[in-house]
Amino acid sequence: MKVVLTGAAGFLGSHLAERLLRAGHEVVGLDNLLTGSPANLEVLRRYPGFRFVQHDVVEPWPDLGPVDAVLHFASPASPNPRSPLGYPNLPIHTMRTNAWGTYHGLEMARQHGARFLLASTSEVYGDPEVHPQREDYWGHVNPVGERAVYDEAKRFAEAMTMAYHRKHGVDVRIVRIFNTYGPRMRMDDGRVIPNFIVQALRGQPLTIYGQGEQTRSFCYVDDLIEGIVRLLFLDAAPFPVNMGNPHEYTILALARLVNDLVGNAAGLRFEPAMYREGDPKRRQPDITRARNLLGWEPQVPLRAGLQRTIADFRQRLGLA
Amino acid sequence: MKVVLTGAAGFLGSHLAERLLRAGHEVVGLDNLLTGSPANLEVLRRYPGFRFVQHDVVEPWPDLGPVDAVLHFASPASPNPRSPLGYPNLPIHTMRTNAWGTYHGLEMARQHGARFLLASTSEVYGDPEVHPQREDYWGHVNPVGERAVYDEAKRFAEAMTMAYHRKHGVDVRIVRIFNTYGPRMRMDDGRVIPNFIVQALRGQPLTIYGQGEQTRSFCYVDDLIEGIVRLLFLDAAPFPVNMGNPHEYTILALARLVNDLVGNAAGLRFEPAMYREGDPKRRQPDITRARNLLGWEPQVPLRAGLQRTIADFRQRLGLA
Repeated sequence: MKVVLTGAAGFLGSHLAERLLRAGHEVVGLDNLLTGSPANLEVLRRYPGFRFVQHDVVEPWPDLGPVDAVLHFASPASPNPRSPLGYPNLPIHTMRTNAWGTYHGLEMARQHGARFLLASTSEVYGDPEVHPQREDYWGHVNPVGERAVYDEAKRFAEAMTMAYHRKHGVDVRIVRIFNTYGPRMRMDDGRVIPNFIVQALRGQPLTIYGQGEQTRSFCYVDDLIEGIVRLLFLDAAPFPVNMGNPHEYTILALARLVNDLVGNAAGLRFEPAMYREGDPKRRQPDITRARNLLGWEPQVPLRAGLQRTIADFRQRLGLA
Repeated sequence: MKVVLTGAAGFLGSHLAERLLRAGHEVVGLDNLLTGSPANLEVLRRYPGFRFVQHDVVEPWPDLGPVDAVLHFASPASPNPRSPLGYPNLPIHTMRTNAWGTYHGLEMARQHGARFLLASTSEVYGDPEVHPQREDYWGHVNPVGERAVYDEAKRFAEAMTMAYHRKHGVDVRIVRIFNTYGPRMRMDDGRVIPNFIVQALRGQPLTIYGQGEQTRSFCYVDDLIEGIVRLLFLDAAPFPVNMGNPHEYTILALARLVNDLVGNAAGLRFEPAMYREGDPKRRQPDITRARNLLGWEPQVPLRAGLQRTIADFRQRLGLA
């Protein structure tokens, strides 16, 4: 199978590409290298089935010949307002990557009779008012809020994906990805796991905002990729499918586990809670649909996933 | 003032253009004439300040020179699935008109330091769970539902408008337009007022789905345009502003009033209620913000507005 994959140099894109290449598929990776990493491409270049095309998916796509599947994983995804590569600092480009990029990908899929898979996100649920979130929950997003540049753009991408299915019969898949972590994750991603691991590896106390009693769920990247590949190859109705780990941890428990695994004696440092409007106070996937449709559920325990992630971060920080 | 107005050949666009032309402003109207009407342009061409450029706002915009304001009113807007020009039959183009069109308009505004006004809609509230709707209600929209091609596209347009304000300091306005009626409205619009007037003028019984006890609110077009012009010229914060008529009528009362005004003796015909997923069961604007900010509220009673609309329909149907 020949697959066009946008965001191939990114965290999830590079893992998905590698998984498909290992299975013998041909992968054409598109990436503008804005938030993706050249180091991730080096890994992929070891596979003869990989071809890289540096291209911004916002612009009309080059002719890549016949194709069996188009997977759209390109987008700035870090909510970190302090990182120049967080989507709060790339608002227009983030919106266009999801709208224009989805459109170009769907057009390619339509022209070649290819399957289209959209990497959507739990952010379509916004700051949810029901827990856990099922796929038929319509979400709670402020269209004029600060986070809308990501949340509304992903909702738009979902709507356009369904429009191509209904209007043109394109065979589509939508995966709503919840918090995922693992090797190759950006260290300045702004989310709690890379923050904690970097602090722990530097021997600093881990910063906890508030009392640390807020909960989060974390899915190890290999589990997520397994689910996505199953969804891609399943002949199924084009409903969105949640993928994430429903198990919840408090931030406090996560911090203690990271310090324990790294052997960091610097402990914890408590800061006043920061809440920005629209920040989800809690989000947890209901994965009944993925379980029923794909027989899928996460397998990798947090401890094991963190160990592999810490080893990767250690190496990238030159501490191995 | 020189104004670029998209959708100038449409129902609302042509009324807004005429109002601005009468006040002595220069108006460059953009329209692809997909759902707009050449007859509306004929009215505008009587004014020396009007210039028409046939252009699809989805494509990169022509250079129109310096400009003081960009008003984005282009979009298919009829929810009628039986009309070839309803947005259910133009799903991709509707999405692109609102996303690509908004982007091109905001870029023009940014380049020329112009003000940007987005014609948004009460559809951003979807099938609301609170009544009446205030601007800080986040809405209830199914991102993968049939109506998403319009609702999510307008939400995306709002989000992008705010992104240009926050990122580039563009001076923006967002008006959320509720049900509006009046002369020049498309007869096949699919909404209840044109349906009733056309049936009454043809001497047919008016079709009521269900018992006719569901309520709707209707704003006469001159009232709406007055509010939009006030918002455009006000120096104000860029919050969305609801505009509509909060007064609610039952469909039954509306039908009887139309038959009365037309002198239609054919009465009413009751059909089983049709509910399509995502159809708003009820929507009513809270116009406190417009009242406080602009001193605006609707002035034209339903009876007077209907009389003028019936006269216009009569003429267009060749019955005058």
